Amino acid sequence: MPTAFSERSERIQRASDSLLCVGLDPDVRRMPKSLRARRPERALPEFLRGVVDATRPYASAYKFQLGAYWAYGPAGFAALERAVAEIGPRRLRILDLKANDVPNTMRLARDGIFRRFGFDAITVSPWMGWESFEALADDPTHGFYVVAHSSNPGSRDLQEANGKRRPPWLEVLARVRAIARRSHNAGAVVGATYPDVVRRARHRLGPGVPILLPGVGAQGGELAASVRAGIDDHGGALVVSASRSILYASAGSDWARASGVEARRLCDAINVARRSAPSRSRRSAR
Amino acid sequence: MPTAFSERSERIQRASDSLLCVGLDPDVRRMPKSLRARRPERALPEFLRGVVDATRPYASAYKFQLGAYWAYGPAGFAALERAVAEIGPRRLRILDLKANDVPNTMRLARDGIFRRFGFDAITVSPWMGWESFEALADDPTHGFYVVAHSSNPGSRDLQEANGKRRPPWLEVLARVRAIARRSHNAGAVVGATYPDVVRRARHRLGPGVPILLPGVGAQGGELAASVRAGIDDHGGALVVSASRSILYASAGSDWARASGVEARRLCDAINVARRSAPSRSRRSAR
Repeated sequence: MPTAFSERSERIQRASDSLLCVGLDPDVRRMPKSLRARRPERALPEFLRGVVDATRPYASAYKFQLGAYWAYGPAGFAALERAVAEIGPRRLRILDLKANDVPNTMRLARDGIFRRFGFDAITVSPWMGWESFEALADDPTHGFYVVAHSSNPGSRDLQEANGKRRPPWLEVLARVRAIARRSHNAGAVVGATYPDVVRRARHRLGPGVPILLPGVGAQGGELAASVRAGIDDHGGALVVSASRSILYASAGSDWARASGVEARRLCDAINVARRSAPSRSRRSAR
Repeated sequence: MPTAFSERSERIQRASDSLLCVGLDPDVRRMPKSLRARRPERALPEFLRGVVDATRPYASAYKFQLGAYWAYGPAGFAALERAVAEIGPRRLRILDLKANDVPNTMRLARDGIFRRFGFDAITVSPWMGWESFEALADDPTHGFYVVAHSSNPGSRDLQEANGKRRPPWLEVLARVRAIARRSHNAGAVVGATYPDVVRRARHRLGPGVPILLPGVGAQGGELAASVRAGIDDHGGALVVSASRSILYASAGSDWARASGVEARRLCDAINVARRSAPSRSRRSAR
């Protein structure tokens, strides 16, 4: 039987001894100076390769923000495909899509994104309802992270809207947990801005269900608190994503090296935080 | 001052005397037989061109379902860009994205999708909250349709979740209405499955705010009821989208001609329905 996504994710994180995910969101307006002489779509593959090569020893995953790639035209999607192939299967390659649709459309998208482009996982929105996860649960070798609670202030508008019972983002987590028990390929996106939200998300999901945690890096102060709140009993099942602080660590000719230095710093800080965390049993005893 | 999106949309619908939007969702498994000898990514541009040429006299808009294009690899995105250029500015070109993100990411996506790829509008999910619309409201010459109520059974899970006050999908419509008053480029996606939902959506949005209505075509019985429910006082502000019934009208060598015949039938049926609709004032008098 092929390995389910969550197990593969755990294996990759153990082998690389890293929970760090490098966000490859190449803002067309912020290319390193030394690459700006070329047309953006020509500079893009070199930029991606430079960052990936420098950060690979410290990262277990790469996340591609789809929104950033439209600006490069069709060549941006060719660069996306090539970067996924070059990173290879020893790292997780996540497409940050934040979309979703009816099951028939999701099956088409799923096959194209996973089989044709080679991604291992995507992020999805829950707005179209629980049945929109069916096509993704049907392919347990690939993963999906449902956006439960985002890191922006807009999270209060719908995710935290007060119903008679529990707020929608907790409904989403309950549904993710149920699917994950069955297909072992579902996780949740929970923004790192509010560590208490991360702690509640881990509590609801239980151990082993991965949380994708964007929004660290720029606001380093919350990093340790969010990591401790997000890990499970085994100190894992957490994918900690940083983008701008790594990609734009330097605007000079040392941009690639600087991205590696920052990735190493974050990887180490995450490991220090998770290894100093009290175990779940001790925590619940308090 | 450049023309706001909603005004441009009305002009195009008047000039073409059509509310029909052709959904270009080319399922890689359902290519016409005569094109199957070639590799899918080579057949795709010809398929798109054949359908567009045959349906153009009866359509005011084309909607591209992003989910369908991943299967063709980077060549699918090149075909997307070319189709948008070939359709040209006398029809609306809508990217059916159903995603959304924080404002900074949406600005990147917006510029790439509108300025680089040439689309006129996108569909977005509201899950990330109201601030996620800001980047789109800031560019009033291009439009966005927020998914308020979808046509699938999953619409009950979050969109209709019962709060203390009104359900989330009506909150979304209230927000769309407020933005549309200000920037004249916001609309809503409302599935055609439930005509009563469409009627309530029009009532909430008021006149002039466009509704994108997917889900007609296969279930023709609801077409007239949904059109009457969705038009505004002036018999417009409605984009009626059909995909599979047009794209796969024939699997034989007459696939292009057959798509034109079906588009004409739908365009005419929509016009009959909207012209036989009682005016809003007469309706409210009942």
